[in-house]
Amino acid sequence: MLVHLSRDLLARSIQHVFKALSNNSQGILSGLYIYAGSKEVIFSGSNVSLTVQYRACISDSKIHIFKEGSIVCPAKYLYEIIRKLNDGNVVLEVNEQLILSITSGNTRVCLSGMSPIDYPFTPTPYHQHTGNSIDVSCSSLKSLIKQVAGAVSTSEGKPILTGVSLKVQGNLLTMIATDGVIRMATRSICIENGRGFSGSAVIPGVNLMEIVKLLDDEDDGMVTIQLNHHEIRFIAQNQIIESMLIEGLYPSTRNLIPTTYVSEIILNIKSFRQVIDRVFVLADYHLITMHISEKKLELISSTAEIGEVRDVLLLKDKNGENFSITINGKYLLSTLRCIESDSIRIRYAGTKSPLVLLPALDNSTWLFLLNPVMTRINV
Amino acid sequence: MLVHLSRDLLARSIQHVFKALSNNSQGILSGLYIYAGSKEVIFSGSNVSLTVQYRACISDSKIHIFKEGSIVCPAKYLYEIIRKLNDGNVVLEVNEQLILSITSGNTRVCLSGMSPIDYPFTPTPYHQHTGNSIDVSCSSLKSLIKQVAGAVSTSEGKPILTGVSLKVQGNLLTMIATDGVIRMATRSICIENGRGFSGSAVIPGVNLMEIVKLLDDEDDGMVTIQLNHHEIRFIAQNQIIESMLIEGLYPSTRNLIPTTYVSEIILNIKSFRQVIDRVFVLADYHLITMHISEKKLELISSTAEIGEVRDVLLLKDKNGENFSITINGKYLLSTLRCIESDSIRIRYAGTKSPLVLLPALDNSTWLFLLNPVMTRINV
Repeated sequence: MLVHLSRDLLARSIQHVFKALSNNSQGILSGLYIYAGSKEVIFSGSNVSLTVQYRACISDSKIHIFKEGSIVCPAKYLYEIIRKLNDGNVVLEVNEQLILSITSGNTRVCLSGMSPIDYPFTPTPYHQHTGNSIDVSCSSLKSLIKQVAGAVSTSEGKPILTGVSLKVQGNLLTMIATDGVIRMATRSICIENGRGFSGSAVIPGVNLMEIVKLLDDEDDGMVTIQLNHHEIRFIAQNQIIESMLIEGLYPSTRNLIPTTYVSEIILNIKSFRQVIDRVFVLADYHLITMHISEKKLELISSTAEIGEVRDVLLLKDKNGENFSITINGKYLLSTLRCIESDSIRIRYAGTKSPLVLLPALDNSTWLFLLNPVMTRINV
Repeated sequence: MLVHLSRDLLARSIQHVFKALSNNSQGILSGLYIYAGSKEVIFSGSNVSLTVQYRACISDSKIHIFKEGSIVCPAKYLYEIIRKLNDGNVVLEVNEQLILSITSGNTRVCLSGMSPIDYPFTPTPYHQHTGNSIDVSCSSLKSLIKQVAGAVSTSEGKPILTGVSLKVQGNLLTMIATDGVIRMATRSICIENGRGFSGSAVIPGVNLMEIVKLLDDEDDGMVTIQLNHHEIRFIAQNQIIESMLIEGLYPSTRNLIPTTYVSEIILNIKSFRQVIDRVFVLADYHLITMHISEKKLELISSTAEIGEVRDVLLLKDKNGENFSITINGKYLLSTLRCIESDSIRIRYAGTKSPLVLLPALDNSTWLFLLNPVMTRINV
């Protein structure tokens, strides 16, 4: 392998792929795979469950491939060294002893590589699209994941609930996540190009959170989502991200959503978030009590022997009875942080039913459920 | 106590004083002391060794004192709550049960306070200057501390070496720090107003590092340094910082500095720092070897089974013999990071003598010593 490329392109590629590596990966998976073909250099990193391929094409004037080849290099050292090189041209060369030499100005680095034959996640050809795919806008996909994936369970007790259920049907891509106890989140976005495909899968929530970061510097183009038996692929302009799936049947969540309600309020989301953030400071066990009466919402929290906070927010609208409920402020806060709307609609269906959070304008796009906390403390 | 003040002034005061509190302080020292006098509100925090008083004067239009008084409040909760209040006016009121109520807009917070009588670090009157004081420029003082205090010992084996030796003599304020083994740093700055005072003290290095942060948002005015038997005070425009001293005699460091040398080189400090930073990535046990020959400096580091880095830097000037030396790259890097000059002069006095680092232009202002590492590895 003999490649000339600019330091900034090399640093960008390596920093990107480095995100997919686990801190405690061992052996060949602690390495970063580099492949120089006739038309592109592909960088790849994997933590087994999540694999990223980032490609730098020769159509980019900052790269010249003089000799094809591949190698797996110790990722942490490679990342640190490239980050600290001066700007300018970098020469990557691999010799027969699997030594990668990196030359840039007066700097010469030699890194002992590993054989690429042993690397389990060699790149798939970039345009090998099968039929099981849809196209969605990158920004909508990121927003969808952010809003839903936070609700997954973090306990390994029920592995299926650590995943996000994804469904493709008609022109909608829907995600659902629940921890099975306190909260559930769901949202749908429009599919730009569905190719008539329907299907479903359960994707590890942690992988989806990583995918949002990996798509962070993508232009706002399209992402092709390709679903296979054991993995899902997100194909963007310069990268292919592959996540393993969680085996098993995702439980039905339809009957969790209350069908009738006794009261409904509408709030400005920014003010609500600020007040919850403030009241949360003294929320022992994360508990925040909400009293809704007439046109106002009073929020109360307290910590024994320290003190209490009370705050009041005016409602934009209210229909139905006054009510009081105690909820987990941490979950409410994390939910509110990833909603992009201006206003929120909250439905109350009784003391033992979950609160339903919806957009104030169009009920159909997303929905959160938050179960009340049963407490004997009455503030 | 009844005080009206703006949220930004209150937040600034509390955030400032909060820096002096230790994470694991217990009892009354986990609290923040608030005192409202006739002309000012003083906020105070302490970790026993370091105490800060920050004052907000009524000459600032953003504060009105209606009733004097004082209280000690749980610092972490107070800090978090004030940070999250909306902008605007805040009312602080203390009742007879030592409850501090904080009211701002619709927000009402009650915090259980502690009796100020039990607080061991009550404020000293602001203008109680004794004769043992000097004035220095705040920016010079910060720069002096940054350059010297990093060289203290972090081991409690010899407690005196965890401190920085401070000397006031003539029109010079000098600081010296050494870990007793590998490095020593010293620098002098001019005293603006000495009042004929001479004296010395040993100040805990960690406290000086905190003092730099506490002085961070001070305007570039003067700082009065006042030396007493058991403590040193730094009096700036809005605050008094008090540090305990380390008892004992600071060892003489004069005979550590080589008096003759066999070679001397001059380097651009920015390039030197960049190269060391890069070579350090593969520096096993932090070891970096320097080869000086003719007009160039070659730097080499390696990590077994991973690889090596070689880099070359052109010298701005060289007098004397070629030489090779292996040093601890971590200490060299931290030293280079706090030097503000453009160029550095390095003197080599033989294989068993420390390297001497000096400013390229004026030898008298600062000096670092860095002992070579004896190693059998010859790269």
